[in-house]
Amino acid sequence: MEKEKEQPTSDFQTRRKFIQHTALATTGLALAPALNLFAANFTESPSIKSRGFAATAADAKLSKWNFERRAVGDNDVLIDIKYSGICHSDIHQMRGHWFPQQYPVVPGHEIAGIVSAVGKNVSKFKVGDKAGVGCMVDSCMECKSCKDGEEQYCENGKMTFTYGAPDKTSPSGLTQGGYADNIVVKEHFVIKIPANLDLKDAAPLLCAGVTTYAPMMRANLKKGDKVGIAGIGGLGHLAIKIAVSQGAEVYAFTTTEAKKADALAYGAKEVIVVKGDQDLAPHFGKLDYMISTIPYDFNVDAYASLVKPHRNFTQVGIPIGGKLSVTAFMMARNRVNINGSLIGGIPETQAIVDYCAEHKIYPTIEVIKADEINDAWDKVVNKEARYRYVIDASTF
Amino acid sequence: MEKEKEQPTSDFQTRRKFIQHTALATTGLALAPALNLFAANFTESPSIKSRGFAATAADAKLSKWNFERRAVGDNDVLIDIKYSGICHSDIHQMRGHWFPQQYPVVPGHEIAGIVSAVGKNVSKFKVGDKAGVGCMVDSCMECKSCKDGEEQYCENGKMTFTYGAPDKTSPSGLTQGGYADNIVVKEHFVIKIPANLDLKDAAPLLCAGVTTYAPMMRANLKKGDKVGIAGIGGLGHLAIKIAVSQGAEVYAFTTTEAKKADALAYGAKEVIVVKGDQDLAPHFGKLDYMISTIPYDFNVDAYASLVKPHRNFTQVGIPIGGKLSVTAFMMARNRVNINGSLIGGIPETQAIVDYCAEHKIYPTIEVIKADEINDAWDKVVNKEARYRYVIDASTF
Ligand SMILES: [Zn+2]
Ligand SMILES: [Zn+2]
Ligand SMILES: [Zn+2]
Ligand SMILES: [Zn+2]
Repeated sequence: MEKEKEQPTSDFQTRRKFIQHTALATTGLALAPALNLFAANFTESPSIKSRGFAATAADAKLSKWNFERRAVGDNDVLIDIKYSGICHSDIHQMRGHWFPQQYPVVPGHEIAGIVSAVGKNVSKFKVGDKAGVGCMVDSCMECKSCKDGEEQYCENGKMTFTYGAPDKTSPSGLTQGGYADNIVVKEHFVIKIPANLDLKDAAPLLCAGVTTYAPMMRANLKKGDKVGIAGIGGLGHLAIKIAVSQGAEVYAFTTTEAKKADALAYGAKEVIVVKGDQDLAPHFGKLDYMISTIPYDFNVDAYASLVKPHRNFTQVGIPIGGKLSVTAFMMARNRVNINGSLIGGIPETQAIVDYCAEHKIYPTIEVIKADEINDAWDKVVNKEARYRYVIDASTF
Repeated sequence: MEKEKEQPTSDFQTRRKFIQHTALATTGLALAPALNLFAANFTESPSIKSRGFAATAADAKLSKWNFERRAVGDNDVLIDIKYSGICHSDIHQMRGHWFPQQYPVVPGHEIAGIVSAVGKNVSKFKVGDKAGVGCMVDSCMECKSCKDGEEQYCENGKMTFTYGAPDKTSPSGLTQGGYADNIVVKEHFVIKIPANLDLKDAAPLLCAGVTTYAPMMRANLKKGDKVGIAGIGGLGHLAIKIAVSQGAEVYAFTTTEAKKADALAYGAKEVIVVKGDQDLAPHFGKLDYMISTIPYDFNVDAYASLVKPHRNFTQVGIPIGGKLSVTAFMMARNRVNINGSLIGGIPETQAIVDYCAEHKIYPTIEVIKADEINDAWDKVVNKEARYRYVIDASTF
């Protein structure tokens, strides 16, 4: 019934399908071990053994998990993961903040490593190449959005997130992400990493980088444009560096006094430490563009009003439940276009990696070991990350 | 204290100031009769006696009220009101749905009549001219917005709504609107009504007309553009007629089956009767532009998603409390610019009146007597208006 009553506009379509699938999958969860055994016995090529850290429940700490990935298919690339970034989305999704999640799931969608095997149809990669994987690992490849390189907006609802999404090809029934020692991904969704870009610097570009780069590119910023960046964490600190590299006059907004010096060092013209709306007031209607990476509910009206009338305010952070409140009063007054943006397509992801390699733009990272992941998650939530934790995959 | 702590971005600035002023004014309310008497005795020119219908409390029915307006000043026009439209905003504001309201207040901001006196500096009008007044009656006239003809966005917070706003020049201390037999307004805020336009057809253009016309003009619609209009009431039915006159392919969205035939008669290509989000789904991502006049909270995500990515959805209806909810998920997916618009400036108001006179675009109205106002308000709330009630001011 629910499937026949199509309501693609009533919610985030991919999410809906995802939730539907998850609900179905959950029903069959008790059968999963038996099915996996069956799959392991009768598959033609051997599945890939992986070691990683998985979430086993919304309120559980991540723990070691040995699991299997599908065998390397004709169009697949097997990547020996070297580094994996920690994104705030990993925490939201594993804790069920956005929608119910099936477990166990290995999170991680900022993956950088070395190609260790390729399927017979793979032409873009060879063993030994540097390679990366971002937020998605599949889509229909046939619809207009897919053909236009906006696979994240696949019109057939086939876009598949890198972790936690139903996946018939996966022995666990779900896609399993990058907090692990390897990954098998369809060639089209694998990003080339230039030789001169360190893998640990490349990892955060694959989500944090492209998620801020893609909307800023679409905003067609001109040299000298005043660009506001709200939320100076993993995404925001990269957004500052990218916008500065393009000649923008950057205004960084953070609630954390201790981040001020860093933001200035990254090239921000001014850093506004926001203790209350009164700190935003002097900037009312001043910005040519603003991007918010704030991953919690916040006063959208107060921030969006810093943008000039008829210009854009883009929200890329997704709060708990996805809910954001605006008021018609404020929208009427500020006349700002409020919009959103979902990661970026594969060509855009390749573009940001190439752009950062060329312009020597690197995320500010802290490399940690696998057994430090849970502690790092707490620090991300507490705004103590400076600015992206990257897991050394040799420690899995 | 509250006044020193400026927070213009934390809320609709004009509203904030308004609420502050109202709070102060309320304190002095007990003194008002004595002060009025004083003012009446010592003013140089005689104040103007008016008869109208006023709200006396948030939950009271409107009732007859004899009151006074300021004497006609050097820059003022006295209008003998002939017709006054009923706007949904009158109901929201008088019932305190948006913010606390001081009483008594005569609502009404769709005012059409005949000039019966002019101050010595008035050059645009002479006695006997057709004239109209819309949603505002004053502003600073000096800031950039005022000079640009966007007085509604007065940067000095001096924009004064036609009714219910603090007004030192008014014997009652508040601006008093158009549900009355006359009004005194500064010349700049008076609209010329062409001789060939009937006054009762002109009245609704002064709010309903300009509120939909102004954002549609800014949208730069091209002939053949698919334009969605959500909410087919006083504003929406005019929006259909205006958009059709400009060659748009209009899709009208209403929850009221009985409005379907009318909307088609006004030129809509298709009328979608919305019983649930499933009725919106077939139109996902199809429209070049959409305007929503819905004056209550609604599923903004579902409607905004009908617009093509990177195009505009404009909300002009202001729900109770002004609150609207959106989800970051949906914004990420639909990539639609969600924005608002506040009425229109004086030049835009003059433009819509001239445009409608020239193109013979008239609102669909029902003329009522003063003692039918309360009943008409109930019908507006119950979506039974077809489509604008206009009060015959000779019945006050
Ligand atoms: Zn991410
Ligand atoms: Zn597709
Ligand atoms: Zn109105
Ligand atoms: Zn002004």
